[in-house]
Amino acid sequence: MSLPTTYLKMLSTATSEGQLRMELVEKPMPDPKPNQVIVKVEATPINPSDHGVMFGLANIADAISSGSGSNTILSAPVPPQGMKAMMARLDQPLPVGNEGAGVVVAAGDDDLAQSLMGQVVAVMGGGMYGQYRAVNAAMCLPLQPGDTAKDGASCFVNPLTALGMVETMRMEDHTALVHTAAASNLGQMLVRICQADDVPLVNIVRKEEQAELLRDMGATYVVNSSSEDFAAELTDVIHETGATLGFDATGGGKLASHILSAMEAAAARTPSGYSIYGSIKHKQVYLYGGLDTSPTVLTRGYGMAWGIGGWLLPNFLAKAGEEVGTRLRTRVATELKTTFASHYTDEISLSDALQADVVRRYYSKSTGEKFLICPQKEI
Amino acid sequence: MSLPTTYLKMLSTATSEGQLRMELVEKPMPDPKPNQVIVKVEATPINPSDHGVMFGLANIADAISSGSGSNTILSAPVPPQGMKAMMARLDQPLPVGNEGAGVVVAAGDDDLAQSLMGQVVAVMGGGMYGQYRAVNAAMCLPLQPGDTAKDGASCFVNPLTALGMVETMRMEDHTALVHTAAASNLGQMLVRICQADDVPLVNIVRKEEQAELLRDMGATYVVNSSSEDFAAELTDVIHETGATLGFDATGGGKLASHILSAMEAAAARTPSGYSIYGSIKHKQVYLYGGLDTSPTVLTRGYGMAWGIGGWLLPNFLAKAGEEVGTRLRTRVATELKTTFASHYTDEISLSDALQADVVRRYYSKSTGEKFLICPQKEI
Repeated sequence: MSLPTTYLKMLSTATSEGQLRMELVEKPMPDPKPNQVIVKVEATPINPSDHGVMFGLANIADAISSGSGSNTILSAPVPPQGMKAMMARLDQPLPVGNEGAGVVVAAGDDDLAQSLMGQVVAVMGGGMYGQYRAVNAAMCLPLQPGDTAKDGASCFVNPLTALGMVETMRMEDHTALVHTAAASNLGQMLVRICQADDVPLVNIVRKEEQAELLRDMGATYVVNSSSEDFAAELTDVIHETGATLGFDATGGGKLASHILSAMEAAAARTPSGYSIYGSIKHKQVYLYGGLDTSPTVLTRGYGMAWGIGGWLLPNFLAKAGEEVGTRLRTRVATELKTTFASHYTDEISLSDALQADVVRRYYSKSTGEKFLICPQKEI
Repeated sequence: MSLPTTYLKMLSTATSEGQLRMELVEKPMPDPKPNQVIVKVEATPINPSDHGVMFGLANIADAISSGSGSNTILSAPVPPQGMKAMMARLDQPLPVGNEGAGVVVAAGDDDLAQSLMGQVVAVMGGGMYGQYRAVNAAMCLPLQPGDTAKDGASCFVNPLTALGMVETMRMEDHTALVHTAAASNLGQMLVRICQADDVPLVNIVRKEEQAELLRDMGATYVVNSSSEDFAAELTDVIHETGATLGFDATGGGKLASHILSAMEAAAARTPSGYSIYGSIKHKQVYLYGGLDTSPTVLTRGYGMAWGIGGWLLPNFLAKAGEEVGTRLRTRVATELKTTFASHYTDEISLSDALQADVVRRYYSKSTGEKFLICPQKEI
């Protein structure tokens, strides 16, 4: 099988003139190095964790598209404070797309690379928004027979993040979890993992239909942050589960602070867990997303044994070590169509992904909406 | 020597009627248990870390005093949100005063207790705002010959906190420190420790005279948060020192966030330290005080490898272990009049400490002002 001599790849550039530009660039088809394979990318999801590299701090409300087909260009203005934060990437065209799946269509001479020829593999390699991608063979996760690229496109980010939350809970000596935006694809995976692993999980959602969706899945603890009694309801279920660790997808506003306050109020119901400086057990909320880009506001008043911080999958995997990473990846591959099944609301082409109206839809991050780029779709 | 049959002790109560009440209560003189000693308390400081137990979330601007002498009572209203946070302590009279020093005037039969008879000792035992205090002999730190109770009154909280910051830096793999409210008694100790231990220290102050005070002590890196170029100046010295750990005494507002932003901007100057998710090295700011009681506001935009959290001396000591604790205490005793010298602006009696106008002075926590209670002073 002969490969085309060039292929299209999506790049994002923050220019020193204050513009964010995303476009498709024609690249020469590489020859695979001995340990590499060429993956013909068939399916690659747009995850919230991709948005940072794609858009940085550009103002997407004012984004416009020009050109058409492979010449489509998306541009959006970057406000001055955004420029400051994006200093380190100015004028560097960055590849985008954390993960995806496709068929191995060429392979280097090494045995591992050769063994993957013709197989459907999933990759978390960055730069997946393109028609082809050369990656180290060792980075490929071969799917089980019968599983398609679409089945495996979201093999890494959401599944490993959900599994990483439960691993973090164990590593940092907690016994139950709180999760926000809990009806998301990732949230649904976490519900299934916690059911299988017998981990008490408090699910926080914003809407009643999301609460119903999770209850229909068998989730035991679901609270709606739009409820008038949210603080009291949250305190009750945190008291019941003993959760002292939370993962917050929203990042901004007071939600993380509300969770810590509820943990503190729950601890105060157990006199032995309380000192004059507040509750004794360390309470932690990790911000793993930024659905709400407003500042994080901490009212404190939850004693001194608390922490807030960023949580990022690659950092977690580096800390957890190779053995844990392999164990988690193996679990993902074997439970791909059950625990870790992803659902997409839209399948789009590479050029569709540069249309301003489409961008605004996937950038809005409505829970339940999830876009899949199919790079082989006609541009 | 015969002891009086009763003594006065300060207690703080948050009542379910929404009042904070502080008063002197007459207690029977205890007989020391075999492993205990009775300390006649001569000097005990009012540290910011005492304010939480003393006042909780009461509104001190509206505090009033009634009665006089040993019948002085301070009362202050507690706003509704404060009541919620103080639920766990309602209607329980709490002893106050973390640390102090005095003479051992009675001792139990155990050898250690007996060996302390007549000695001047420092104690971090809580309940030190009183004329006497029964404590376990093992909790006493005998001062060196010639050192007085006033010399040793602040032996624990500030010295061990300052030493604990440097220990935390080493335990958590950082190599330099940022400190706020850096001209405080504690800040001055930290300057001396970092000079002795060769640790680069970035001192943040609010006023030019505080900056001068620290420079006169030989501090190398001093930045004034009132400067128009504060962000740029802070970034420069953080870049120079490589500091990725900060200790913030203010707690509220945006100062902690500014420190993280400066750490991120400093990291961005070193391309290898930077990924598409921001700087790679974990950046941490601990809030160890609450001089600013307004909410902590985090603008984020410093990547994903960051954390904010409470830092409390007893929690640190528990985590660091007995061996570290002993090493730090020994250093304090031997350097009591040099590295760890404390200065007091006012010496007051137990009843003075309940006068509303005096309370408002020490509650305001002006840097440089520090009150010492002398419980043997006439009430």
